[in-house]
Amino acid sequence: MSEFNQPISGNELARFSGPNTFMRLPQARSFDGLDVAFLGIPMDIGTSWRSGTRFGPKQIRAESAMIRPYNMATGAAPFDHLQVADIGDLAINTFSLADSLRIIRETYGAILQHDLIPMAMGGDHSITLPILRAIAAKHGPVALVHVDAHADVNDDMFGEKETHGTVFRRAQEEGLLQSDKVYQIGLRGTGYAATDFTEAQGWGFQVFQAHELWGRGLDQLGAEIRRDIGPERPVYITYDIDSLDPAYAPGTGTPEIGGLTTPQALQLIRALRGLNIVGCDLVEVSPPYDPSGNTALTGANLLYELLCVLPGVTPH
Amino acid sequence: MSEFNQPISGNELARFSGPNTFMRLPQARSFDGLDVAFLGIPMDIGTSWRSGTRFGPKQIRAESAMIRPYNMATGAAPFDHLQVADIGDLAINTFSLADSLRIIRETYGAILQHDLIPMAMGGDHSITLPILRAIAAKHGPVALVHVDAHADVNDDMFGEKETHGTVFRRAQEEGLLQSDKVYQIGLRGTGYAATDFTEAQGWGFQVFQAHELWGRGLDQLGAEIRRDIGPERPVYITYDIDSLDPAYAPGTGTPEIGGLTTPQALQLIRALRGLNIVGCDLVEVSPPYDPSGNTALTGANLLYELLCVLPGVTPH
Amino acid sequence: MSEFNQPISGNELARFSGPNTFMRLPQARSFDGLDVAFLGIPMDIGTSWRSGTRFGPKQIRAESAMIRPYNMATGAAPFDHLQVADIGDLAINTFSLADSLRIIRETYGAILQHDLIPMAMGGDHSITLPILRAIAAKHGPVALVHVDAHADVNDDMFGEKETHGTVFRRAQEEGLLQSDKVYQIGLRGTGYAATDFTEAQGWGFQVFQAHELWGRGLDQLGAEIRRDIGPERPVYITYDIDSLDPAYAPGTGTPEIGGLTTPQALQLIRALRGLNIVGCDLVEVSPPYDPSGNTALTGANLLYELLCVLPGVTPH
Amino acid sequence: MSEFNQPISGNELARFSGPNTFMRLPQARSFDGLDVAFLGIPMDIGTSWRSGTRFGPKQIRAESAMIRPYNMATGAAPFDHLQVADIGDLAINTFSLADSLRIIRETYGAILQHDLIPMAMGGDHSITLPILRAIAAKHGPVALVHVDAHADVNDDMFGEKETHGTVFRRAQEEGLLQSDKVYQIGLRGTGYAATDFTEAQGWGFQVFQAHELWGRGLDQLGAEIRRDIGPERPVYITYDIDSLDPAYAPGTGTPEIGGLTTPQALQLIRALRGLNIVGCDLVEVSPPYDPSGNTALTGANLLYELLCVLPGVTPH
Amino acid sequence: MSEFNQPISGNELARFSGPNTFMRLPQARSFDGLDVAFLGIPMDIGTSWRSGTRFGPKQIRAESAMIRPYNMATGAAPFDHLQVADIGDLAINTFSLADSLRIIRETYGAILQHDLIPMAMGGDHSITLPILRAIAAKHGPVALVHVDAHADVNDDMFGEKETHGTVFRRAQEEGLLQSDKVYQIGLRGTGYAATDFTEAQGWGFQVFQAHELWGRGLDQLGAEIRRDIGPERPVYITYDIDSLDPAYAPGTGTPEIGGLTTPQALQLIRALRGLNIVGCDLVEVSPPYDPSGNTALTGANLLYELLCVLPGVTPH
Amino acid sequence: MSEFNQPISGNELARFSGPNTFMRLPQARSFDGLDVAFLGIPMDIGTSWRSGTRFGPKQIRAESAMIRPYNMATGAAPFDHLQVADIGDLAINTFSLADSLRIIRETYGAILQHDLIPMAMGGDHSITLPILRAIAAKHGPVALVHVDAHADVNDDMFGEKETHGTVFRRAQEEGLLQSDKVYQIGLRGTGYAATDFTEAQGWGFQVFQAHELWGRGLDQLGAEIRRDIGPERPVYITYDIDSLDPAYAPGTGTPEIGGLTTPQALQLIRALRGLNIVGCDLVEVSPPYDPSGNTALTGANLLYELLCVLPGVTPH
Repeated sequence: MSEFNQPISGNELARFSGPNTFMRLPQARSFDGLDVAFLGIPMDIGTSWRSGTRFGPKQIRAESAMIRPYNMATGAAPFDHLQVADIGDLAINTFSLADSLRIIRETYGAILQHDLIPMAMGGDHSITLPILRAIAAKHGPVALVHVDAHADVNDDMFGEKETHGTVFRRAQEEGLLQSDKVYQIGLRGTGYAATDFTEAQGWGFQVFQAHELWGRGLDQLGAEIRRDIGPERPVYITYDIDSLDPAYAPGTGTPEIGGLTTPQALQLIRALRGLNIVGCDLVEVSPPYDPSGNTALTGANLLYELLCVLPGVTPH
Repeated sequence: MSEFNQPISGNELARFSGPNTFMRLPQARSFDGLDVAFLGIPMDIGTSWRSGTRFGPKQIRAESAMIRPYNMATGAAPFDHLQVADIGDLAINTFSLADSLRIIRETYGAILQHDLIPMAMGGDHSITLPILRAIAAKHGPVALVHVDAHADVNDDMFGEKETHGTVFRRAQEEGLLQSDKVYQIGLRGTGYAATDFTEAQGWGFQVFQAHELWGRGLDQLGAEIRRDIGPERPVYITYDIDSLDPAYAPGTGTPEIGGLTTPQALQLIRALRGLNIVGCDLVEVSPPYDPSGNTALTGANLLYELLCVLPGVTPH
Repeated sequence: MSEFNQPISGNELARFSGPNTFMRLPQARSFDGLDVAFLGIPMDIGTSWRSGTRFGPKQIRAESAMIRPYNMATGAAPFDHLQVADIGDLAINTFSLADSLRIIRETYGAILQHDLIPMAMGGDHSITLPILRAIAAKHGPVALVHVDAHADVNDDMFGEKETHGTVFRRAQEEGLLQSDKVYQIGLRGTGYAATDFTEAQGWGFQVFQAHELWGRGLDQLGAEIRRDIGPERPVYITYDIDSLDPAYAPGTGTPEIGGLTTPQALQLIRALRGLNIVGCDLVEVSPPYDPSGNTALTGANLLYELLCVLPGVTPH
Repeated sequence: MSEFNQPISGNELARFSGPNTFMRLPQARSFDGLDVAFLGIPMDIGTSWRSGTRFGPKQIRAESAMIRPYNMATGAAPFDHLQVADIGDLAINTFSLADSLRIIRETYGAILQHDLIPMAMGGDHSITLPILRAIAAKHGPVALVHVDAHADVNDDMFGEKETHGTVFRRAQEEGLLQSDKVYQIGLRGTGYAATDFTEAQGWGFQVFQAHELWGRGLDQLGAEIRRDIGPERPVYITYDIDSLDPAYAPGTGTPEIGGLTTPQALQLIRALRGLNIVGCDLVEVSPPYDPSGNTALTGANLLYELLCVLPGVTPH
Repeated sequence: MSEFNQPISGNELARFSGPNTFMRLPQARSFDGLDVAFLGIPMDIGTSWRSGTRFGPKQIRAESAMIRPYNMATGAAPFDHLQVADIGDLAINTFSLADSLRIIRETYGAILQHDLIPMAMGGDHSITLPILRAIAAKHGPVALVHVDAHADVNDDMFGEKETHGTVFRRAQEEGLLQSDKVYQIGLRGTGYAATDFTEAQGWGFQVFQAHELWGRGLDQLGAEIRRDIGPERPVYITYDIDSLDPAYAPGTGTPEIGGLTTPQALQLIRALRGLNIVGCDLVEVSPPYDPSGNTALTGANLLYELLCVLPGVTPH
Repeated sequence: MSEFNQPISGNELARFSGPNTFMRLPQARSFDGLDVAFLGIPMDIGTSWRSGTRFGPKQIRAESAMIRPYNMATGAAPFDHLQVADIGDLAINTFSLADSLRIIRETYGAILQHDLIPMAMGGDHSITLPILRAIAAKHGPVALVHVDAHADVNDDMFGEKETHGTVFRRAQEEGLLQSDKVYQIGLRGTGYAATDFTEAQGWGFQVFQAHELWGRGLDQLGAEIRRDIGPERPVYITYDIDSLDPAYAPGTGTPEIGGLTTPQALQLIRALRGLNIVGCDLVEVSPPYDPSGNTALTGANLLYELLCVLPGVTPH
């Protein structure tokens, strides 16, 4: 038997049973001894089109009950190497975006007192700004792998400086990022001007538009990013489910056609093994627009795949 | 031909065609000459459970295309008596509840410079507080008919003083209401203490819990309220769709079982003819939880029935 | 064993199995010897708002697999007394309403060469006009029990004389009905003028608006109608599922709030036992708007209840 | 502060957050000190028509997050009087109905070693037979309040003696029930013969068909049952959600039209205060047929109302 | 500021607000000065399988609110070059396919009195025949880019010569097309004989079956078509959403597996820049079969991409 | 006219009409003279996660009404060469998995007394074990083409030896398969250990994981399998719809991301022409999770494509 927490096996307790934690892992009461902490940030008040991501963490956890511990494609067995637990949901203030961002920043500050990797289940993408503030406070400016349909570099929206569309401009302005080690992958659709993407490139951001990636495997791109970042540099990975084409992830708030495929998503993540990943999030799963539950299932699997490439998980 | 705006007839233009205005009325460019203005306040950032009411106005308008101008049960023909138009949506700030409430207050202030009756399509119930502020600024404290599953008299929620659950305590504190002419109808479910309902009764509010109304026609209750208010006193009507049982209105954010029926809703509204109604709203229709569209249809019909009892509409 | 066709028992073959006929009865190849023939008229090109009733017969049949042969409330055992079969669907022309009505008229003419009672599953309500033409050709003008939210007595719609909204004016003009033995039950909602209902009353139609029936049992009304018609007069029953409140029948094309309940529907039908019923239809079930399938289930049950009051079915 | 477990307040942690336990109560690790234990029995392999009840417990718990601790209509405050917890799900064998029934029997045996009242969330109705076996082993034959659309007294189905349709014949044969204190409420629909209901009446069962209850309040019926049982006799309450009309509870496996309303359900349960209730279950919620989630919400509320009438809960 | 109409910005008015026009453009009252007119043709009476396309224009417009003015992939900024407006819906006769086709022909005749490009939102594919009649009356026979799962070259269906399955045979017979400049792209599935596709090839039509295109980028095919047509020849583009695989466009009336991807669709359209496009349509979006709304979103985006390649739109 | 059964043409009877048999073929009363028999095995009690496959056969048949007789891509015209019929559903025991497997084995034994090819519509994958027992009893050990997301080679689940996850280990142990002619295609996702796939390779099974196939056409793989099997060896094809990516087949019980595409599925099947196929099944379509119906449509098409490569079907 492993010394580490294990997901409840589907052969011990029927998959539709048991606690609604990520992969039916134990819910930790303390952060002591944890290598990885999954947590929910249930929020949708930072979204500009369809809402519903407040139910994302609950649905991602529900669908994660399907996932078994061993990665058949890569041989990763994360629960042989890491102490992983679900630490529940952050207590955001659903009536105030600004206050919720403050709470996230503070809670992450407390979490990061411990030497663990937080894996957040969103929630809308506005959660990533306070997370990055806490991450940078601990690790200094980080490299960023940002997979998304949207660049999220608006200056403001309705006069607000902090929403799901302004995250990475704020992060750049605040010095939270190593600007030449920021990779935006899957961007597409429509904008207000050419500068929507080019301005960030001026800061050093590397943009990989979706249409440049159509029909291509992403293992090579992932390998290039891995080499460019190198094994030491702290890196944060933020994964917006709308980077995927709506065929693969219909249940999201601001879908854009012509996106990535799940094979591409898996190739990209699997190629990132070996990085010094210090945190991850998976955002924008909106259950009311996902009648089959499969978008949440996809989100759960992407989180699992990210778990499989964390430092310390060596394939068999 | 009437001198007033008329809905587009379903025999002239197929019902699934035409502008997405309330009952396919003209969209007014100016408030001049209007007796009644329908408007949307698309917002869900004040909700505490399921979101989605931001799409309420759009869906209510879509379903309102089914409604014809003449009320077969009451004989009311509102478009023979009143100049009615749709004036579009308020430009709320979807990232800030506080700022949105400010915008609603100011916009209503501008609207009420004109001698018209605003009929708001929500949106969550937090919109009613700034509306009442503007209404009271014009008319002084008003009588209030409040049909709802919830009393919405919390002191605060997550420390916030202005949400969809605190509206009527704030209105009372601010002197916007004639407290002994406030009627809360349809309340039910669970709370935190007996005082959830009794405290407001101490202010003078008259509470009619749903379980006291089960199986009863509401014409008599409506008539009593009408007599109690009298023909002169300005009265505001706020209609939360969740006053109805979820069987009748499944698509709402905080459903409570054991609610009113649509016959009761119609009886109540029809009994209110003769009051000096100065404004109305219909809130909490959440389309993502309403796959058939029938909750929005119900909301549209209740707004139509309210239109049929406005001052100046005399039955044939 | 009965000498008559029996539905396949749910204890012999699992309910989700077997032929998709009404109640899993045999599909008849010939009309010989049949007392009652269920048939589908899958059509929606006569509808003015939501379409989808073309899938009504298929879905009604699917849900009818739940129904067992014996009526627990009334003691009727129709399959002990009548030879009943499903005769399949009429081959309408889905690109032409006019041609489809012609086909229905002709096919009913052929069916009515036999001494059987046709029970039609719609389809939109426009099917009832050609049915009544065939019925009157055989039986002369008939009494009519018409349960519906709408009177369907428009003169024309978009210049068309034969649609789902003009059926009973045409029938009246053509002398297919005994005008003073026409009962319209459940009418409600909005119209274009008071005459929408009163004109037909001038022809002798007896109108029972839904709001007059709220909260009342309908056994008495049914009994009065039964007495008024008497046991000899041929009577046709046309049942529009939208007579029911949308809470009870959400999946229909032109729902109207404030309708009848299923207990009222059952009371009404059960009170009609003893009439000389010569045909029935159940129309306007629209599966795309009925995600749970329960509207089709309701339609199937109402057809079963009509079967239970046909001539020859005597309770035990 | 109460000495007992309390549900997490919606003003402390947003309702869409937190553990997926019943009313967000603590999940108990031990039975010691518990007065009431909620538990899930996620199973649908005993159903004969639509499946999906295996997800019932998960969805009932999710929707129960809306319920606050105090009953506004009755004044009951169960968490002031009882130590209540969620003890998770039973580990049934989803591939074998027979083995699952054995597991339920044994697990209940272990649970009932403690002096607590088990409140089961189903699952299909076949769970009630092994529960009754364990209950009778502890308490002797019990009175039974059985609210359901179906009598569930078949002798066998497909040759199987233990399914969701044979429960109460088996219970009667095995002497688990005080036969003249069995109340079957809400029965309706179709059957195979008159004996479907009358045979059980011969055993002493008291049958209240739904059609006898239409339009009536059920407080009186509840009071009569309470008097008939008396305050000492142990009584088990089994609540099939399909006792409700499909308008009120669409998401269930074998819906029958013409059922009870939620006001009737609440009246009935509230009238049962004062009985020596020794266990309850709420069965047959099927989430795949419940797109709005409101059937699960209804189930959660009925369980809460049952909690409010357990011995020891005295109104304020 | 541009001299041309601009879509309402999502940063000025929340996307779920505002008029339900295409991209929230102004609704034009007159055709004067327009370069491009979007219009709805809400109709489904020409469909042979699932209906519902009558709600296509309304839903496409609703989802188009997500689209911003600038094309990030191609640099097109159509609203810098063209005066674009929404001119509302055609007043078809929903009870007669033949009459509706006549109305479309006549209305297009009136529209084409002006020098503008009509962009139609269907509606089923039968709308394209009368459009082509009007187009050819103005421009003479045109080249045709026809993207579809089906060839739509039946001779008749149920004896009808004009349905959604006969459009291009009729157009060919009537001399509306330059037969050797007709490109049918994406055809697949099953038919009645090999001649279903080959007969049209005999007329000169160029057929590109879907299975020949699997896994290939379509930029090259688009470029070949562009060269083959040349810059002067008038060309009409008719885009059936069912050309896409059901994974990408589930909400349509006659889906066929093994279809195109949205990247292929975008590549194809983008390669057509430089043609003398005189009109476009996007047909067969059926909202009742599109619970997430993403098929309508896809249709809206394809219309936007077509707008971006119209004459006069030069990339920056 | 062909001497063989033909599907009802969509130009003779509207597609939404007619019998709910596969492709609206005749329902055979006897097996005499049949070359191919389609049959339903409606069952979901062998599933471990989402249920609902009991409605698979009904929904696959419903959607199959769209399919026409001629294969446009391959030229196959199966109804010119084979006598094909639908023989209805097997009478499984929905309360006992073990008994149902016995029934399937016996019924297949009876069917295979005739010289026909059975084409089963599931139902969950547990049906394939008893089918293979009957197939091997007639043909001896067979080659197996197994397209699936899962290997289904568990030893037991909850102590049960025969479930949808243990099929092919049992078949291997019982000598039903030619182990070195077993091809498992599309496997992916997570497991309990590396041995989940490698153990079966030790038996001779050839495993083609999905990630090895991403972005590749499968014609070549199909051709290699065809050559490896050769034209004489009896081969059974079992097709789990979850081999497809959830984008293409959302409505299934245990979806896994990163799966095959429908073009790959079609390429694979089409490459298998020329094998001595002795039976096929298509399993795991779960309608409650398939709101658009497109998963069932896909299943119907895959069955049709399998029909097109059966022995005796020669392309034109």
